[in-house]
Amino acid sequence: MQIGMVGLGKMGGNMAERLRRGGHEVVGYDRDPEVSDVASLKELVDRLEAPRAVWVMVPAGGPTQQTVNVLGELLDPGDIVVDGGNSHYVDDQRHAEELKAHGIGFVDCGVSGGVWGLENGYALMCGGDKANVDRLMPVFQTLKPEGEDGFVHAGDVGAGHFAKMVHNGIEYGMMQAYAEGWELLEASDIVKDVRGSFASWRTGTVIRSWLLDLLVRALDDDEHLDALKGYAQDSGEGRWTVQAAVDHAVPLPVITAALYARFSSRQEDSPAMKMVAALRNQFGGHAVTSVDGSHEKGADSPGADVVPPKEAE
Amino acid sequence: MQIGMVGLGKMGGNMAERLRRGGHEVVGYDRDPEVSDVASLKELVDRLEAPRAVWVMVPAGGPTQQTVNVLGELLDPGDIVVDGGNSHYVDDQRHAEELKAHGIGFVDCGVSGGVWGLENGYALMCGGDKANVDRLMPVFQTLKPEGEDGFVHAGDVGAGHFAKMVHNGIEYGMMQAYAEGWELLEASDIVKDVRGSFASWRTGTVIRSWLLDLLVRALDDDEHLDALKGYAQDSGEGRWTVQAAVDHAVPLPVITAALYARFSSRQEDSPAMKMVAALRNQFGGHAVTSVDGSHEKGADSPGADVVPPKEAE
Amino acid sequence: MQIGMVGLGKMGGNMAERLRRGGHEVVGYDRDPEVSDVASLKELVDRLEAPRAVWVMVPAGGPTQQTVNVLGELLDPGDIVVDGGNSHYVDDQRHAEELKAHGIGFVDCGVSGGVWGLENGYALMCGGDKANVDRLMPVFQTLKPEGEDGFVHAGDVGAGHFAKMVHNGIEYGMMQAYAEGWELLEASDIVKDVRGSFASWRTGTVIRSWLLDLLVRALDDDEHLDALKGYAQDSGEGRWTVQAAVDHAVPLPVITAALYARFSSRQEDSPAMKMVAALRNQFGGHAVTSVDGSHEKGADSPGADVVPPKEAE
Amino acid sequence: MQIGMVGLGKMGGNMAERLRRGGHEVVGYDRDPEVSDVASLKELVDRLEAPRAVWVMVPAGGPTQQTVNVLGELLDPGDIVVDGGNSHYVDDQRHAEELKAHGIGFVDCGVSGGVWGLENGYALMCGGDKANVDRLMPVFQTLKPEGEDGFVHAGDVGAGHFAKMVHNGIEYGMMQAYAEGWELLEASDIVKDVRGSFASWRTGTVIRSWLLDLLVRALDDDEHLDALKGYAQDSGEGRWTVQAAVDHAVPLPVITAALYARFSSRQEDSPAMKMVAALRNQFGGHAVTSVDGSHEKGADSPGADVVPPKEAE
Repeated sequence: MQIGMVGLGKMGGNMAERLRRGGHEVVGYDRDPEVSDVASLKELVDRLEAPRAVWVMVPAGGPTQQTVNVLGELLDPGDIVVDGGNSHYVDDQRHAEELKAHGIGFVDCGVSGGVWGLENGYALMCGGDKANVDRLMPVFQTLKPEGEDGFVHAGDVGAGHFAKMVHNGIEYGMMQAYAEGWELLEASDIVKDVRGSFASWRTGTVIRSWLLDLLVRALDDDEHLDALKGYAQDSGEGRWTVQAAVDHAVPLPVITAALYARFSSRQEDSPAMKMVAALRNQFGGHAVTSVDGSHEKGADSPGADVVPPKEAE
Repeated sequence: MQIGMVGLGKMGGNMAERLRRGGHEVVGYDRDPEVSDVASLKELVDRLEAPRAVWVMVPAGGPTQQTVNVLGELLDPGDIVVDGGNSHYVDDQRHAEELKAHGIGFVDCGVSGGVWGLENGYALMCGGDKANVDRLMPVFQTLKPEGEDGFVHAGDVGAGHFAKMVHNGIEYGMMQAYAEGWELLEASDIVKDVRGSFASWRTGTVIRSWLLDLLVRALDDDEHLDALKGYAQDSGEGRWTVQAAVDHAVPLPVITAALYARFSSRQEDSPAMKMVAALRNQFGGHAVTSVDGSHEKGADSPGADVVPPKEAE
Repeated sequence: MQIGMVGLGKMGGNMAERLRRGGHEVVGYDRDPEVSDVASLKELVDRLEAPRAVWVMVPAGGPTQQTVNVLGELLDPGDIVVDGGNSHYVDDQRHAEELKAHGIGFVDCGVSGGVWGLENGYALMCGGDKANVDRLMPVFQTLKPEGEDGFVHAGDVGAGHFAKMVHNGIEYGMMQAYAEGWELLEASDIVKDVRGSFASWRTGTVIRSWLLDLLVRALDDDEHLDALKGYAQDSGEGRWTVQAAVDHAVPLPVITAALYARFSSRQEDSPAMKMVAALRNQFGGHAVTSVDGSHEKGADSPGADVVPPKEAE
Repeated sequence: MQIGMVGLGKMGGNMAERLRRGGHEVVGYDRDPEVSDVASLKELVDRLEAPRAVWVMVPAGGPTQQTVNVLGELLDPGDIVVDGGNSHYVDDQRHAEELKAHGIGFVDCGVSGGVWGLENGYALMCGGDKANVDRLMPVFQTLKPEGEDGFVHAGDVGAGHFAKMVHNGIEYGMMQAYAEGWELLEASDIVKDVRGSFASWRTGTVIRSWLLDLLVRALDDDEHLDALKGYAQDSGEGRWTVQAAVDHAVPLPVITAALYARFSSRQEDSPAMKMVAALRNQFGGHAVTSVDGSHEKGADSPGADVVPPKEAE
């Protein structure tokens, strides 16, 4: 079928290519004229025959909102917009309302797969009306990997990005679980071959996974990760997962702990732990560490008269 | 080579069989005379030629300790005992000392694989002196799966069970991560196909794993797990992992949260949350729920005079 | 000074009374004509001399929004609205914008104190422009407790409710800390006098507090809290605290754990732990508990062929 | 009554003094001859009339064990030893057994109070047989603060230190709750007076406590704690609390999170987060931070070929 693709970066560009290889006619637009088939979104819309389908593959937030706004003006009733970016599911619901006011359909689609997607296909999680999803099925069929898995019509508008968001939340928890296990093995006096222990788990154990394969590969490059800082960004999906959990009164101790570990990893020094140190000093006269690195005996510090060091806590 | 196998249950029996298929001579002992090759541990020892190797495959704790005690008396200097059960790594170190006093070597070996191990091999994590491990390599080679993975000499005595323990701790965290994601998807109003969402992740995503395959299989049997109670036992390894973390001052927020979730799952009612309810009632006159299921307005309850309901907290 | 009070429930009514005792002229409005001084918000506004001050003391969310909307129409430029309810700080910022469009000032004020506030005063946390706060100081001075504490101009619009929100978050963490300690003491075989242990801490220890006093009082009523269910509601502030933490990338492990414990306390059965049980069953053939209470041996259950029970995990 | 006091440091010395002021006859022993009344433990025992009572106030672990060993040899059947140090409750049970073999009684006593204890009394939590505790009541009565609180016979041997341990666990949770609230307030753009917010809570709120008073005092010294590092030691009691929780299958999410926050505070860099960074790099080609502070674009790093940066997770 014919489809417009807005955003021809690594993801959008490869997806357009996979669609073309699959026999679809793709009209691509990108701000970069080098890679764009058309000069403007208007021209893209003009080039497509109604009822049109336009796949938006631009960064979440402002860029997606602006694209939706413009498409809302340019497209005709009966056309469909697919948001394949990493949008917040809450935004999907608003985008669908805005487009619906113009008679335009909307499908959200969480996409996973990266550069291997071009060859192997992209895992797709969609949300929206069945009629809209069905119309796009030829495109989804081409984009998804072979086999029975790799595609789901997860539910109503927003469900696709909701499912992708939860996927990422699970990923946070899994990564942290492996990472904690690695730290504990590294801390052991008796375990000498930590990399080998992880490698041994790749066959026949309950915890074998693609992440485990990657982990061993990382240790092959740098056995104790000496070259890395313990510093990890978080993407919006992790935060949205926790906020969705709070909204739904669902306890997510593991996923939240994994998110918080990333927050902490980016702090030079923990403000909360400054306060804990301050309190210990106040009641216990505990030795505290100053920012200049010197250790002061609590006995000389302000609260030292309250309780002697031994009385600790 | 020749080896004694103590404990011929599902694990020990299958391992003996795999070893025999691999050309080793196995003398097996079990309390059950139906499956035992010999009438006693003494006879087992007598049947083996020195220097002997005896693989112990009995439950951790008392049974393993007793077997070690008896073998310490029966075996000769230069013999080796392998503990392939689920012992605590702390016990390994004691067992090694006790056997060393008799001149007997000791290797601990965490074993993973289950019923599929007979055909596919068992993942093995060993701890002990290199000389002892090397002597047992013919046995390990036969037991382990084909390929480069599935075996590690992790380090000193105890390292094998330490690694297996951490493996299980990681497993707790991973299972909880998937489980939390499942709960959040189930709680969503917009997501209609939760099983399908998980199934879609089996191909091409970061979180694909054997556990994910099992999860989808469980949902195929019972899409919303209606037939199950949210009740999960924990094995010793999860607890030992947290205790080892505390001993090593290693923070394990995710693995610990997963363990605590299991503890909570087995409580009919949470004592801690009774106290939280009691405190809320004391200061806020909040409505509380009595064990008979009735809701009482805080206004009539003991602390209701302190702060009116609206003042909440 | 003269002030309008909208909402004459337990909190608003008592605050009006304390203000009158302090020499202020209060015109009160409530939907309930029995307690209202005026028949409508319009009459309340008419009764006040410009520049007016109106204190809104109604439930957060819809009721507060509607009151702000109506006051925005009725009041004149130069008047001030104080929101003393439990509004989300994010809403404060919007309310301030909306009122500013009419030339009306806005101050948010977190209020703590409950029924004892009438006699002892209310702790007040305010946010807004200094000029607006200063104009209201006679009212704040009367409402607050005697002494130097009990009032803060915390910052810009929203800062008052932000501070109150954090206060409640801290409260969640403290309550949970005591509750966990209580559960552990109750679980001990050797500790026989748990109530007495808590009572002993009321004097001379680091953890003495008003909450501890309340806790002992609760145990005086019901030593093992047998009459209570471990079921605790959460107010909006706890959720908002966690969401603010996520927005600010601040890790709050303790406060979040306390919130999640409340979520869990309200679940008949944990969906996540159903999944953990299902996974254990899949890979380990573990015995699972069915909803009808029967325990099934894993051996007969779907995944039992994967790994024998002993191989557990 | 007559009592021996072993260990005359800040705690033991002050307790001896409070006992003397209360009319008791105290014979003190310390390794430091400057403060010791006798030259040896033997002389201390000789100076006391049977049946003797000896209060041990030395560091937990080795020193306490050695003192118990020596007293076991020197004392007579019918004498009593009190361990007032910070021993692990598990050790109490062993010490009681060892002394019982000599016919000597044992009472464990958790002591709280510090330097203010001399004047105001010490909170005491005791464990042991009622007969032994009763014999020591004159001493406990003098040591404890005035009023009904400040003393508990918590239960069997070990119960006193168990209760003190839980006290400290609760303290960890409370300190962390305040500390997290402080960090969040400091992170807010709209809150300008964080110290003032905390100060305002000292009167009339649910979270007023002695720790809150100390917290405000700490901020009076250093409003943003600029002079402190976020580095906090932990004492044995926090670790033992978590280990006891695991032994009793009691979930302690808040207290454990507080302990882990201290562990993390002492890490220069988090090993676990190195692994998370490594995994992100492997699958996402995410930019990572090297130990030399340079940021490398993921595109050039080992795993960058797997998934393009945008595909993140």
